Amino acid sequence: MKVAIIGATGYSGAELFRLLQAHPHVDRCDVYSSSQDGVHLSESFPHVGAVDGAVLHKLDIEALAKYDAVFFATPPGVSGEWAPALVDRGVKVIDLSGDFRLKDGAVYERWYGREAAPAAYLKRAVYGLTEWNRDAVREAELLSNPGCYPTATLLGLAPLVKERLIEEDSIIVDAKSGVSGAGRKAGLGTHFSEVNENVKIYKVNAHQHIPEIEQMLGTWNGAMKPITFSTHLIPMTRGIMSTIYAKVKQPFSLNDLIDLYKTSYEDASFVRIRQPGKFPATKEVYGSNYCDIGLAYDERTGRVTVVSVIDNLMKGAAGQAVQNFNLMMGWDEVEGLCFLPTYP
Amino acid sequence: MKVAIIGATGYSGAELFRLLQAHPHVDRCDVYSSSQDGVHLSESFPHVGAVDGAVLHKLDIEALAKYDAVFFATPPGVSGEWAPALVDRGVKVIDLSGDFRLKDGAVYERWYGREAAPAAYLKRAVYGLTEWNRDAVREAELLSNPGCYPTATLLGLAPLVKERLIEEDSIIVDAKSGVSGAGRKAGLGTHFSEVNENVKIYKVNAHQHIPEIEQMLGTWNGAMKPITFSTHLIPMTRGIMSTIYAKVKQPFSLNDLIDLYKTSYEDASFVRIRQPGKFPATKEVYGSNYCDIGLAYDERTGRVTVVSVIDNLMKGAAGQAVQNFNLMMGWDEVEGLCFLPTYP
Amino acid sequence: MKVAIIGATGYSGAELFRLLQAHPHVDRCDVYSSSQDGVHLSESFPHVGAVDGAVLHKLDIEALAKYDAVFFATPPGVSGEWAPALVDRGVKVIDLSGDFRLKDGAVYERWYGREAAPAAYLKRAVYGLTEWNRDAVREAELLSNPGCYPTATLLGLAPLVKERLIEEDSIIVDAKSGVSGAGRKAGLGTHFSEVNENVKIYKVNAHQHIPEIEQMLGTWNGAMKPITFSTHLIPMTRGIMSTIYAKVKQPFSLNDLIDLYKTSYEDASFVRIRQPGKFPATKEVYGSNYCDIGLAYDERTGRVTVVSVIDNLMKGAAGQAVQNFNLMMGWDEVEGLCFLPTYP
Amino acid sequence: MKVAIIGATGYSGAELFRLLQAHPHVDRCDVYSSSQDGVHLSESFPHVGAVDGAVLHKLDIEALAKYDAVFFATPPGVSGEWAPALVDRGVKVIDLSGDFRLKDGAVYERWYGREAAPAAYLKRAVYGLTEWNRDAVREAELLSNPGCYPTATLLGLAPLVKERLIEEDSIIVDAKSGVSGAGRKAGLGTHFSEVNENVKIYKVNAHQHIPEIEQMLGTWNGAMKPITFSTHLIPMTRGIMSTIYAKVKQPFSLNDLIDLYKTSYEDASFVRIRQPGKFPATKEVYGSNYCDIGLAYDERTGRVTVVSVIDNLMKGAAGQAVQNFNLMMGWDEVEGLCFLPTYP
Repeated sequence: MKVAIIGATGYSGAELFRLLQAHPHVDRCDVYSSSQDGVHLSESFPHVGAVDGAVLHKLDIEALAKYDAVFFATPPGVSGEWAPALVDRGVKVIDLSGDFRLKDGAVYERWYGREAAPAAYLKRAVYGLTEWNRDAVREAELLSNPGCYPTATLLGLAPLVKERLIEEDSIIVDAKSGVSGAGRKAGLGTHFSEVNENVKIYKVNAHQHIPEIEQMLGTWNGAMKPITFSTHLIPMTRGIMSTIYAKVKQPFSLNDLIDLYKTSYEDASFVRIRQPGKFPATKEVYGSNYCDIGLAYDERTGRVTVVSVIDNLMKGAAGQAVQNFNLMMGWDEVEGLCFLPTYP
Repeated sequence: MKVAIIGATGYSGAELFRLLQAHPHVDRCDVYSSSQDGVHLSESFPHVGAVDGAVLHKLDIEALAKYDAVFFATPPGVSGEWAPALVDRGVKVIDLSGDFRLKDGAVYERWYGREAAPAAYLKRAVYGLTEWNRDAVREAELLSNPGCYPTATLLGLAPLVKERLIEEDSIIVDAKSGVSGAGRKAGLGTHFSEVNENVKIYKVNAHQHIPEIEQMLGTWNGAMKPITFSTHLIPMTRGIMSTIYAKVKQPFSLNDLIDLYKTSYEDASFVRIRQPGKFPATKEVYGSNYCDIGLAYDERTGRVTVVSVIDNLMKGAAGQAVQNFNLMMGWDEVEGLCFLPTYP
Repeated sequence: MKVAIIGATGYSGAELFRLLQAHPHVDRCDVYSSSQDGVHLSESFPHVGAVDGAVLHKLDIEALAKYDAVFFATPPGVSGEWAPALVDRGVKVIDLSGDFRLKDGAVYERWYGREAAPAAYLKRAVYGLTEWNRDAVREAELLSNPGCYPTATLLGLAPLVKERLIEEDSIIVDAKSGVSGAGRKAGLGTHFSEVNENVKIYKVNAHQHIPEIEQMLGTWNGAMKPITFSTHLIPMTRGIMSTIYAKVKQPFSLNDLIDLYKTSYEDASFVRIRQPGKFPATKEVYGSNYCDIGLAYDERTGRVTVVSVIDNLMKGAAGQAVQNFNLMMGWDEVEGLCFLPTYP
Repeated sequence: MKVAIIGATGYSGAELFRLLQAHPHVDRCDVYSSSQDGVHLSESFPHVGAVDGAVLHKLDIEALAKYDAVFFATPPGVSGEWAPALVDRGVKVIDLSGDFRLKDGAVYERWYGREAAPAAYLKRAVYGLTEWNRDAVREAELLSNPGCYPTATLLGLAPLVKERLIEEDSIIVDAKSGVSGAGRKAGLGTHFSEVNENVKIYKVNAHQHIPEIEQMLGTWNGAMKPITFSTHLIPMTRGIMSTIYAKVKQPFSLNDLIDLYKTSYEDASFVRIRQPGKFPATKEVYGSNYCDIGLAYDERTGRVTVVSVIDNLMKGAAGQAVQNFNLMMGWDEVEGLCFLPTYP
């Protein structure tokens, strides 16, 4: 099995490289970049060391067409332009960018502020929230890997929304993310001295992951209303926590709620539900593909609180991409992902 | 003016010491501790250096009765026991602990899990949320300094609640705090390797600051309902951000909302309201007594988002204590607090 | 292959568990603790999740005697007491503590302040600085795994000392470590608010790793003199950097020096030498078993600077232990350790 | 007293602004920038808030000539160009950049890689290592404020060098710095995700502070030889620790050494010497103008270890600049600097 990573000089690309290097069914993993050509990946990422063959190539459709699968870990716009031609040539494409996540090109253009990919390919793309879309993922030719916030949030909300247990207009998501989610590009917003010892809120009611979350919620329950969604930058490198609040339609017991989640995810290798009174911390999934979920119900207010954590570069990007890749290739979804979080 | 700090070996006590050492009207600031006697404060806190007179004394009612004012920066239960006798002898008491914050002793006992202070003194205690209680603070003999989360949250909510602009049952507070809020006592929960690169939620629906916030909201609008309130531990030392969500009763413009806040706080030296589209970060108040507030309104959901940040050891503890002390002594409330945040 | 970890509730033990869970030749990995019995490991370490069989047992010599290999990740004194009996029963023992590192019991007692293990076992113990002791490791029954600082320091110094290129009395080691090296026990010295935004020096000229380093240097060159060795606590969780200074006996070129290192380590899978002008950072080995080394030579002063980095819990503890375990079992030393660092 | 800060949009400039706003003898502090004009400082630094008059002006020699004193907190080259004209017009200049620190223009050009300031002004400039140059500082018209590393290092070395207690060729300085020392300009080297959980060494034997340190050492003892000097980037915002190693000429007692330091600095308000066995941490001077020093002597090696810590933006930049400014104006050097470190 020969695969390629486009955008290997970014964080998601580097994480893909780490995973695919150790993947039992991948014989060769080549790396491509739009900004560098002929340079070894270790020039950008010394931690990689002198891995054979890890020399960056520039994008070339003929060369790329020869791989079994191609991963895009690129900024907005790149896969929208390049992926269709690869799909047409029979290459399996896994896209970690947002270019194929929104089915409606007009919505994409409103939230991303740029032209959408061709509608036919938006339609063909399969949204890879693995745990809730396994059958479609297995058949996918063009896989659109979910965003980091949507992954944590949707896995946390799915049972409640699908079972119609919460008021459709009551969802508030207060999300916290480590800085690696902002990518490797340098800027004042990711400057250590500005981020360290600091919590910042950003893109209030304006994050491009909002329509992505709402689109999926809408497929689960057509009556869902817009959500309130905030994102906070936390002085850490990896990790996302989505703290989710919603009003229940009628009172239930916490134990029943936790049972519902355990049942919903009983076949999910990477989703772990905490016992009553216990909540996951982001570090408890660090470097792994797990999504850990804890739940609370408050009788005083009739609200449920869901705490869902992932490593944004793993289950929120490269890990889930490999999980989807596994299914697309007909393997067990856990191949190359069977390791515990790195703690502490 | 001679003052004493009880509990100078904790973080709030040390911060009080820093402020009172540089206070223009304090000639002498002595330090007391229940755990140490005859040892210089620099043994616990080397940053203090060889400040003259900073030798810790054990608690002694006769000795303490001679000060003009006494600050308690102590764990629960200490001021509840000692403060009444000092008040009776005419000493002004500023209590940074929670012992006198809840007017109803039964509520205290339920949330704090220990016996409440005598009811008569609970009644006499003035709640020192300075910006909204200046007149009473000026007359206070026993000042109960607000908790860190209530300070950030209540300053962020006051105009909305007092003007009855939000649904009474719609408040959700998602609070984030640095680790110094947990005090100096060592434990696994504050161990660096456990906290660093990590976000944890704790005391979900169970924090003792919930009744404190609800009590004050209730005095502003008797129709207020219970709030949803979550606290998160952030890998930083200082700073609190309260992200507050509420449903508006009827649509309004963001500009009007911001004008309301600016008007509400126009005489408040330490509250700064951000322009539309701008939100404060915790680092922007680091080491200072400011509370910075930003606001958003989302037409899609009809919800307002309030972002309120403080330094938990300053406006959330020692800074506000000095602010209240200033008013109790008849001085300008800004004395000894007129400095900018330390940035970065 | 059945193995046991004693001390699985500490950080090195947890890291061993992570590695051995994914080890291709380990069928079963049981966990033991002197402080807990009958409790699942996930009570101490939620990141582990519901791994089957990970219930803590108390130490029992009969039970332990049935394993093929036993790892001690315990505080000083435990393995010194328990390991001999296991060795006598034919169990391979890998000891991550310091109990068997110093050949001279009197030296142990002086630096550790407690009774040494029996002299016969001190003698039998093989010091597992893998790259320089592979043959002995393969035959070892009682393997003494090196300390974290000695591993980084000795790998950085070996070629210089063995080739007698530096003045014997000129070595100064300025080491920096993340906080996980101090273990999981809570104390003021590891309290987040004390460590964050802080650099501290500790155990100046008094660290118990000094005799361990000097012992090994002495076997390479009997003329070596005492070293100057300082350790600094850095506000990070993992990682050690040893910055090593020494005076050269006669001038040489940096390229020759780097060639010497590359040659010395050409068969070492886990040692990577940087090009001239490049130096490794601790994050570039994070979570992996690598030791990365960079070199400089200053003509102005005649001094060489060696920069050697490891992950203290991996190559500095659990990783090297597994590397040694592999050799003791006759496998390739890289089994279960073939993965790139987690970056960023 | 009217003063101006040039370069107020950088970290040292912002720190100067914080100090001068609260300075008892400064009536007005205006801000200048080469990159912005007509914009309020709070656009760059929201923590400043709506301070009256803090609107950035562009550099203009006529306007600047009207101030009593002008501070340059600018990148290399700016003050070298502008300061002479201001000095000629009788304005007191305090330069925080390196432009006037090296007396020999050729040395400047070799280490800074750019043209030196005019030789006449290099000669007139007074090097403001306050504690060792007070008389000259009082008379200075053009004050060259020391670099951050030289301040910590020279204060740590002065008594040893001046008393000729150490071998002239034996000094090794292993320095550690927080990230704010690299300034506010964004780059991969200051990107949070690259710096967090990381220690990096940089500019090995090549830092431009080396000739600055050697120049001053040479004035104290003409026999001094080149030093070995390394700088490490630490995942924290503020703080410098210089760990200094040197060989003593003849054995002495640690108590005598500490007495020498206490005597040397008995009139120094901002230098604090630790007791035997105690060492300062960077956090113990955070936000303050202190330099704290600890000492060790190792009989085994005949080496002394000096640990010297400062806040790089305070004693290492803005704080020492104000201290020098005070002396130049004839005031007590502690004016506006009398506050304890912010801890924790």
